[in-house]
Amino acid sequence: MNDSVEILTIGDELTRGEIVDTNSSYLAERLSELGFRVTWMTSCTDDAADIRRALEAARQRARLILVSGGLGPTEDDRTVDVIAELAGVEPQVEPRALAFMQERFGRMGFQLTPNNLRQVRVPAGAEVLPNRAGLAPGFRVRMGEADLYAMPGVPRELKRIFADEIEPRLRALTPAGATRVRTFHIYGMGESHIDHRLAGLVSGQPGVSIHYRVLFPENRVKLVVRDRDPAAAETRLGALETEARARLGRHIYGVDGETFPAAVGRILRGQGATLALAESCTGGLVGHLVTSVAGSSDYFLCGVVSYSNQAKQKLLGVRPETLAAQGAVSEACAREMAEGVRALAGATVGVAISGIAGPGGGTPEKPVGTIHVAIAGPLGTRHRQLLYQGDREQVKQVAAHAALAMIYRYWDAEP
Amino acid sequence: MNDSVEILTIGDELTRGEIVDTNSSYLAERLSELGFRVTWMTSCTDDAADIRRALEAARQRARLILVSGGLGPTEDDRTVDVIAELAGVEPQVEPRALAFMQERFGRMGFQLTPNNLRQVRVPAGAEVLPNRAGLAPGFRVRMGEADLYAMPGVPRELKRIFADEIEPRLRALTPAGATRVRTFHIYGMGESHIDHRLAGLVSGQPGVSIHYRVLFPENRVKLVVRDRDPAAAETRLGALETEARARLGRHIYGVDGETFPAAVGRILRGQGATLALAESCTGGLVGHLVTSVAGSSDYFLCGVVSYSNQAKQKLLGVRPETLAAQGAVSEACAREMAEGVRALAGATVGVAISGIAGPGGGTPEKPVGTIHVAIAGPLGTRHRQLLYQGDREQVKQVAAHAALAMIYRYWDAEP
Repeated sequence: MNDSVEILTIGDELTRGEIVDTNSSYLAERLSELGFRVTWMTSCTDDAADIRRALEAARQRARLILVSGGLGPTEDDRTVDVIAELAGVEPQVEPRALAFMQERFGRMGFQLTPNNLRQVRVPAGAEVLPNRAGLAPGFRVRMGEADLYAMPGVPRELKRIFADEIEPRLRALTPAGATRVRTFHIYGMGESHIDHRLAGLVSGQPGVSIHYRVLFPENRVKLVVRDRDPAAAETRLGALETEARARLGRHIYGVDGETFPAAVGRILRGQGATLALAESCTGGLVGHLVTSVAGSSDYFLCGVVSYSNQAKQKLLGVRPETLAAQGAVSEACAREMAEGVRALAGATVGVAISGIAGPGGGTPEKPVGTIHVAIAGPLGTRHRQLLYQGDREQVKQVAAHAALAMIYRYWDAEP
Repeated sequence: MNDSVEILTIGDELTRGEIVDTNSSYLAERLSELGFRVTWMTSCTDDAADIRRALEAARQRARLILVSGGLGPTEDDRTVDVIAELAGVEPQVEPRALAFMQERFGRMGFQLTPNNLRQVRVPAGAEVLPNRAGLAPGFRVRMGEADLYAMPGVPRELKRIFADEIEPRLRALTPAGATRVRTFHIYGMGESHIDHRLAGLVSGQPGVSIHYRVLFPENRVKLVVRDRDPAAAETRLGALETEARARLGRHIYGVDGETFPAAVGRILRGQGATLALAESCTGGLVGHLVTSVAGSSDYFLCGVVSYSNQAKQKLLGVRPETLAAQGAVSEACAREMAEGVRALAGATVGVAISGIAGPGGGTPEKPVGTIHVAIAGPLGTRHRQLLYQGDREQVKQVAAHAALAMIYRYWDAEP
């Protein structure tokens, strides 16, 4: 039997690009967690003919169809009519939803217009899915071989009906067994290299899949294991994780929900260390990332964004000779900035970033994308130079992540 | 003839709900502006059979198909193979894209893996659409009656190829007449208030539409005018812009491509003023935003991220009595920080932000989301207090934008 799932979102505001369709991704994520495989996600206009064609395609290729949108009170809202037509029944007013609307309108002193009645209709014979967050009820109908669930497009109402009414019904349908997921967060290795190193990792293993995602300049790899036996799923995932770690080594900085700044915070806490930052081309981005972590004030003392050379000299003690002889974007300047901010703040480690974010300011010797990062601390001062060709925002992101990596690895046996 | 347009986005990360599909809405918006009617938006998995079925459906119901995703280097990336198969040709390596990749890898000292070659293939005979933002080229092929354009799924690359290569080709196809678009960037007014003020602005005007979008904590309003006569489109848009500006007033900080930090930079340049920042809860975010603008080093001198109280005293000269009596999150502290950083940097204006980003650190008197912003300059020191209930990232964004607004309006007649 066909086990595809289709999500259909209806509305001109989607096909004109006025809003981003977050309902589809919400439903897809929840369905995946329940063990369903979403194969199709379709958006179509409010036009009745388009809705009809979309539903006809869906009922041919999916056994489960989730529909969002087109259940409102206006003439534009035609979802109930089209579904009723395809199911060979009439739309009819749902008495409990009507009673709720009358009661609510009465309380607020509103008059019921004929259009309002449109909003409380369902196809005759449909199973009604009460809406505890709004007026239009959801409903469930049989559509050929497929089971169809319809919800309003307002995200708050859709989520409420899905959680209250649809999820419990779907749980009863899911195949016995369990899904276990592990996500690796990777920095310092490109997607094609990760893929190369993990080649064959999951081949020939039933129910196992591997998924890649770029979150520039980081990468994510997700392992998914499905097994009838939850304990076996756990064990198999554990074995795969061990193997993936052996192949990717320290390029994995964290798993599941841990962000790179949070992993850096974990390292600093583990060392009982404090941090000070001296940023030039990143302009404050490293501080913004570091302070994205709740509780970062425990280890982050201060930052200096020394955009001008005067600030580098006056606040960080960079020597005028260094700036004159080698310029602000140089190894020597980055080292002096790191040491300077460490001393200024009395921090365990000081980290500095200097570079040319572009689009202007590049020279043949120091092209746009030239980045110097330095870290000063109890194990000495270290430096790294990078060259990244990209736009201003990308160069800033690459430089900021290189700085995070310098902190993350400072105490490593082989940094 | 069928004039439907279909957008097809490919990737398990979409059908599993791991990411929200912003490519579809981006393309739909651009296509709508060009006068096309997008009828279908489909997302499917990375599975070759699913991609094939999606493309077969698309070529039957659309005359123009835009495809995103599945052009990467991994085994998961099968878009080129399936399109080539449906077009009855072989995939082949595109020599210019390969040369660019080799040159770039060589410069960065990377080894080419066999997988990398997958990324520079196109179907034989396809028109190549160069990618100036990444490695995988886009391409155009004929697919039955339909014209198909394929792009990588990385949003930055997709946007670049669309703007450079696809939009000019589509413009040549659009019906006679012109589309004129103006986007207003708005800060300091919520969506429902904007909607209320603009009520009726475009009613009864043929070919005119208005579109709203929230880009937290900003808002965008877009006016689109279509007219057979380009000069008339221009004139009508001009009249609507005048009326919109009268209704929204100074809440419009910029139009079209100008970001809020760029608008702030325009004000500072106009005053011949320089800027210094003292950030606490924003952690460097304001500096990051200010330096997102190319050439910001002309007016931005330096920032101090004084996360600890010690840094506030030592670097900015905040008085210990102020911290003891009123705390770091207070009007007095924000004023002293702004004045302190102004003096430290010798800048025209000094701007300070102090607040409680949460989730910890709140008290009944100073709940999470309490924000103090101050600006010190030749017209005196000013202060604003805000309370925003949201998560850590939202509080930081609200505080940072409030600081930008303080600079933007500092020289206004009625600030």
